Amino acid sequence: MDFGSFDRRQFLAGGGAAFVCTLAGHKLFLDQPADLPKLASGVRVPPKVAAAEGPAQTRFVSDVSTAAANAQRQYWIRAEERRWDIVPTGRDEMMDKPINGKTRFPAYVYRAYTPNFGQPLGNGRIPGPLIRANVGETVAVHFQNRLSVPVTMHPHGIFYSDEMDGAYKGKYTDPGGFVQPGRTFTYIWTARPGTQGLWLYHDHGPLDPVPLYKGLFGPLIIRDPSQPRPDVEFFLFMHSLQPIATNLDRLFGCFNGRAYAGNTPTLRAKVGQRVAFHVVALDNDFHTFHLHGHRWTDTDGSVIDTKTMGPGESFTFEFTENDPGRWFYHCHVFSHLHMGMNGWYIVS
Amino acid sequence: MDFGSFDRRQFLAGGGAAFVCTLAGHKLFLDQPADLPKLASGVRVPPKVAAAEGPAQTRFVSDVSTAAANAQRQYWIRAEERRWDIVPTGRDEMMDKPINGKTRFPAYVYRAYTPNFGQPLGNGRIPGPLIRANVGETVAVHFQNRLSVPVTMHPHGIFYSDEMDGAYKGKYTDPGGFVQPGRTFTYIWTARPGTQGLWLYHDHGPLDPVPLYKGLFGPLIIRDPSQPRPDVEFFLFMHSLQPIATNLDRLFGCFNGRAYAGNTPTLRAKVGQRVAFHVVALDNDFHTFHLHGHRWTDTDGSVIDTKTMGPGESFTFEFTENDPGRWFYHCHVFSHLHMGMNGWYIVS
Amino acid sequence: MDFGSFDRRQFLAGGGAAFVCTLAGHKLFLDQPADLPKLASGVRVPPKVAAAEGPAQTRFVSDVSTAAANAQRQYWIRAEERRWDIVPTGRDEMMDKPINGKTRFPAYVYRAYTPNFGQPLGNGRIPGPLIRANVGETVAVHFQNRLSVPVTMHPHGIFYSDEMDGAYKGKYTDPGGFVQPGRTFTYIWTARPGTQGLWLYHDHGPLDPVPLYKGLFGPLIIRDPSQPRPDVEFFLFMHSLQPIATNLDRLFGCFNGRAYAGNTPTLRAKVGQRVAFHVVALDNDFHTFHLHGHRWTDTDGSVIDTKTMGPGESFTFEFTENDPGRWFYHCHVFSHLHMGMNGWYIVS
Repeated sequence: MDFGSFDRRQFLAGGGAAFVCTLAGHKLFLDQPADLPKLASGVRVPPKVAAAEGPAQTRFVSDVSTAAANAQRQYWIRAEERRWDIVPTGRDEMMDKPINGKTRFPAYVYRAYTPNFGQPLGNGRIPGPLIRANVGETVAVHFQNRLSVPVTMHPHGIFYSDEMDGAYKGKYTDPGGFVQPGRTFTYIWTARPGTQGLWLYHDHGPLDPVPLYKGLFGPLIIRDPSQPRPDVEFFLFMHSLQPIATNLDRLFGCFNGRAYAGNTPTLRAKVGQRVAFHVVALDNDFHTFHLHGHRWTDTDGSVIDTKTMGPGESFTFEFTENDPGRWFYHCHVFSHLHMGMNGWYIVS
Repeated sequence: MDFGSFDRRQFLAGGGAAFVCTLAGHKLFLDQPADLPKLASGVRVPPKVAAAEGPAQTRFVSDVSTAAANAQRQYWIRAEERRWDIVPTGRDEMMDKPINGKTRFPAYVYRAYTPNFGQPLGNGRIPGPLIRANVGETVAVHFQNRLSVPVTMHPHGIFYSDEMDGAYKGKYTDPGGFVQPGRTFTYIWTARPGTQGLWLYHDHGPLDPVPLYKGLFGPLIIRDPSQPRPDVEFFLFMHSLQPIATNLDRLFGCFNGRAYAGNTPTLRAKVGQRVAFHVVALDNDFHTFHLHGHRWTDTDGSVIDTKTMGPGESFTFEFTENDPGRWFYHCHVFSHLHMGMNGWYIVS
Repeated sequence: MDFGSFDRRQFLAGGGAAFVCTLAGHKLFLDQPADLPKLASGVRVPPKVAAAEGPAQTRFVSDVSTAAANAQRQYWIRAEERRWDIVPTGRDEMMDKPINGKTRFPAYVYRAYTPNFGQPLGNGRIPGPLIRANVGETVAVHFQNRLSVPVTMHPHGIFYSDEMDGAYKGKYTDPGGFVQPGRTFTYIWTARPGTQGLWLYHDHGPLDPVPLYKGLFGPLIIRDPSQPRPDVEFFLFMHSLQPIATNLDRLFGCFNGRAYAGNTPTLRAKVGQRVAFHVVALDNDFHTFHLHGHRWTDTDGSVIDTKTMGPGESFTFEFTENDPGRWFYHCHVFSHLHMGMNGWYIVS
């Protein structure tokens, strides 16, 4: 049997069998499932969140409503639970072998909706929907929590006031840092000049990092509209799905919630196209992104084909495609590669 | 009980339960206290250190004395033992909870004195005193060891002859690489053009890395006086305090010897000020520095809000403050964040 | 006794006691020897490799042969097994102590030969021979596998068609991605403009990463002939030799297949020389290269003396030597330094 049995040491290779945090008085380990609703019941609602809606709160809500109405971009996003299959084909095409055992778990996903949460815009996925802004624009994200535990949206790159950072801060927490089940909070974020590029958003609520391990993260891109757009763009998150979040018996190295070539995104481009890779790392570990048969000019001007990334880092590289074939992209950390962090890039 | 019991796996998350080195025939592990005086008794005094003071040594001391007298900057620094509290408030303000259990240990600190070790310049701290030089200047550091084991000062960035590198090199060790208890050694270092920026110094003696784990490190800055100075500057070391050094029952992720918001430095600035963050990583692990609500231009010209750092790396970023509020700075490695690597940055 | 007993926790410090991959249905761990011939017998020969030599294959071989004949550079390289001593002096000069216990193992090496595999060009070593190309040139590498398991050569930096990437790709594998024992495959690679600099090559066959852990990697440099050449150049691989590959009872942190100063390369230069360090990281871990007494200008223009590197990354720095003496180079991760990743750089 290939993967049927739990093996502690598999976790060590992924930054695994380890203590990750203490929530509500419970120590949590990456190889043991966390009971989030139970943990949430032990978390105090912060005073500013619990406060009856006095004049200050009313004024704040009114101000946000006005800002949202004036924003150039509006998003309606729900946090939802969704059954998610990490290896839907049941195979690893890199090693040409079956992946046995259970690979589904109840994920947490950010899911986009039409205005006022009218209709879902497709299924919820890992990662969440792409949030777009042009330089100079303001974005309003109406965030509704349909999970059973408090969560948030915390963005990188884009600017915001501290009430809009979506971060749990103990007794200093603002309402946007502790969005309770069933509640909606509107985040106002501004794409200042100089911040063009790829960023991310993720949960940063009182149960962080567990909801994030269950899938609560997504890409955010700020564009300079004076710059040419690539012909094709890929958004890839380097992360892991571990028992703390999945209750499965092993860990998976992932791109976009999926493990092993044929399950991770199979990317496609054509010779002559301008191609952009947008890559984010979001894990307890460090990763090294590598693409076969291609090299790119890094932000410092050097030409590379492999890049180290830490948790919360993101970068973009572009090139004009000139090399047809079936190529690998993967994490160059050997054990991560072999736990699923590989995929196909097919150029025709 | 929150933290009362020793848990092996907490250490794994911090690069912990592991072998770190063999000293004097003893294997040392990060989760087991090291008996430094006992280990030191098993270390041979290197021949150049043990040598009676012949003519060569007398000439060397005379040369150093002359160089020190001509140096633009002189420092008097002692290595001392000092009781140190890692969590003086007894609370974690990020999670709004108490930190139970013992949090004090006998630290090793570098402590600055007035000339000729007249009076201490404040208490010894983790990290040690800021050593400053302008480009082109020579610095003399009169280093006195008041610990019970041999230690040194090894700087990054600034230049020196190999006799002044403060590194234990086995049988090739110079006196500055093995400063015995009670002895004083004067290091002569020169700030060559091109080396402006933030660097560090740390013990690199025969018991390295254990004294360093106990607190023997500090910042060193080389300035170009033709450049404008920021209005406010912060110096932050990303590191850990582990049982090997503390004899406490768990590990702490730290900024400047302290763990958890409210204990780590609470940084303060005002809108309109030019603010500089000087960040150093010095651990067995890699870290990722993240600051909420702010972005900076990295050395390669890209705008970022998160940066990966390895042991011995240092960097500076600056911005003009424009965003009032209560912000987090933290390590973006989840387990490090939750083991204490977070703090407040408050802008008024 | 210093190192006589196996200690699980030594491995944790090096990214060790962990699961690394599953090959042919067997889980492999870094602290347990892998039986490569047995594993190889469980790997299916991919269809394109197994196919009888039809017209397409004949045409491919003919095309490659023509390309090789036209290539500006030709190399004849064999993969061979060779007894290798990780600590030939039996001593650690940094700590001035003996290294007891066994330090030899049957390594896998790439070994260069004169044309048509006439005569070996010296002994096979870790790392393999330097492959050189000037910008614009094509390189033909005639690769012969004299091991008992299928292996390959996969390069970074230089360009190639996907049939020439030397990567096992499951059922999509081309003959160059599965070079069977006794077979020869000719790789054709092209050094496009913009790719000048240091790169690497390594096994990427069906048993990857184990053959690579046994030594199957080497440096590849692409030069711009219009640029001045340094007077002296060093090529350093940061890696580890672990029980999975060595069947020895502990792990070694290595530069170029050797552990501990006096065994790792003792580098030598003279004042006034232009010196280039070419450094590659190739491990399951991240490393931080540090050189005493010297600083260099990084690709982004900043001056540093320590650089973090992930698996598969490579970089070059140059300086004009001005500082005589006996200096250390080492990995600044404490436990890696103490497991052997240190060496001498001697300037006269």
